[in-house]
Amino acid sequence: MSLLEALNWRYAVKKMNGQPVEQEKVDQIVAAAHLAPTSSGLQPFKVIVVTNQELKEKIAPIAFNQSQVIDSSHLLVFAAFENYTEEGIDAVFTRMNSERGLPETGTDAYKAQLKGMVLSRTAEENFNHAARQAYIGFGAAIAQAALLKVDSTPMEGFNGPALDELLGLNKQGLRSVTLLPLGHRDEANDWLANLKKVRTPLEEFVIEYK
Amino acid sequence: MSLLEALNWRYAVKKMNGQPVEQEKVDQIVAAAHLAPTSSGLQPFKVIVVTNQELKEKIAPIAFNQSQVIDSSHLLVFAAFENYTEEGIDAVFTRMNSERGLPETGTDAYKAQLKGMVLSRTAEENFNHAARQAYIGFGAAIAQAALLKVDSTPMEGFNGPALDELLGLNKQGLRSVTLLPLGHRDEANDWLANLKKVRTPLEEFVIEYK
Repeated sequence: MSLLEALNWRYAVKKMNGQPVEQEKVDQIVAAAHLAPTSSGLQPFKVIVVTNQELKEKIAPIAFNQSQVIDSSHLLVFAAFENYTEEGIDAVFTRMNSERGLPETGTDAYKAQLKGMVLSRTAEENFNHAARQAYIGFGAAIAQAALLKVDSTPMEGFNGPALDELLGLNKQGLRSVTLLPLGHRDEANDWLANLKKVRTPLEEFVIEYK
Repeated sequence: MSLLEALNWRYAVKKMNGQPVEQEKVDQIVAAAHLAPTSSGLQPFKVIVVTNQELKEKIAPIAFNQSQVIDSSHLLVFAAFENYTEEGIDAVFTRMNSERGLPETGTDAYKAQLKGMVLSRTAEENFNHAARQAYIGFGAAIAQAALLKVDSTPMEGFNGPALDELLGLNKQGLRSVTLLPLGHRDEANDWLANLKKVRTPLEEFVIEYK
């Protein structure tokens, strides 16, 4: 199945059937988010994988009782860094140079320039920047799920601060930005299952300068 | 090629060779962004496709003279809505119901709730929200390019306001958020071509609640 076929097959499933998704497929979906590019390779987000049913039941009311939270096989939470830190940036470049067998000093100029830019921004600006990077990985994960015929529901409708509190994310310098329950559609009970996918006309979406 | 193989194959190409990318492939890359999911299906972004060489030469200094702007075959500019409007939201639901052959009134309650939420936020909050949606499409486009063995360079390093001015984006209620030059790697002249891809260790990236 091509990616375009997969993106046409997928939709934001409203009712999942509770059937498990093979761990191997979940690993590939998480791997797509992990491999996705981020600004300067900073990877300022994490993916939280919830399979614990008791925890999903606590998350459900935080997500306005959307049934996919409970009926999903694996609930992914994308959480972005609340801010960048000098130590965090150093760690990224130390690891990069070490794994590439390159001298630490080779990236000094780039790193200094990057720090000058990033560390002069407000925490809120950096969080917004980190959240965007998380959304690149989110897009890659959605694509990978669809290619594996795993259903998913991109979900921004939840109380972020309440979820952060429940998962102790602030203590880890993280803030939840979006959810992605993974599972299988319950076609008979999903009102959206057989409705046409609708998009902005392509000619309005694209502007060409030839 | 699987998506994970493709994501491993790709890297942020630093030097492109100027060879053209087939229009059919570019169309598929844009289609992936177009088909990507967005919050409530609002699709609050556009993709600008620049092949005009003169225009690329004007964009180059705005993007700190990164050579990929000029040496790319097609330069994609992702531009997010500066804000949401009541008319824009209405138009999305009118089209959706019309294409689905459903009565306009069927989505009234959902639409009212959505408007209540979206239109009470500041323009800046809505722009940030729209930008994140653009990044889902950006992630899908990067994935599609890699699957087609088309090189791309995700690029945030540019002067947004200057690019918006050059392309007249503000007049269209848009603000550029990221660039994606498409082309082919010039392996012999790209210092990054053969360096190891480095990512945060998976065990630090993922948090599991079993």
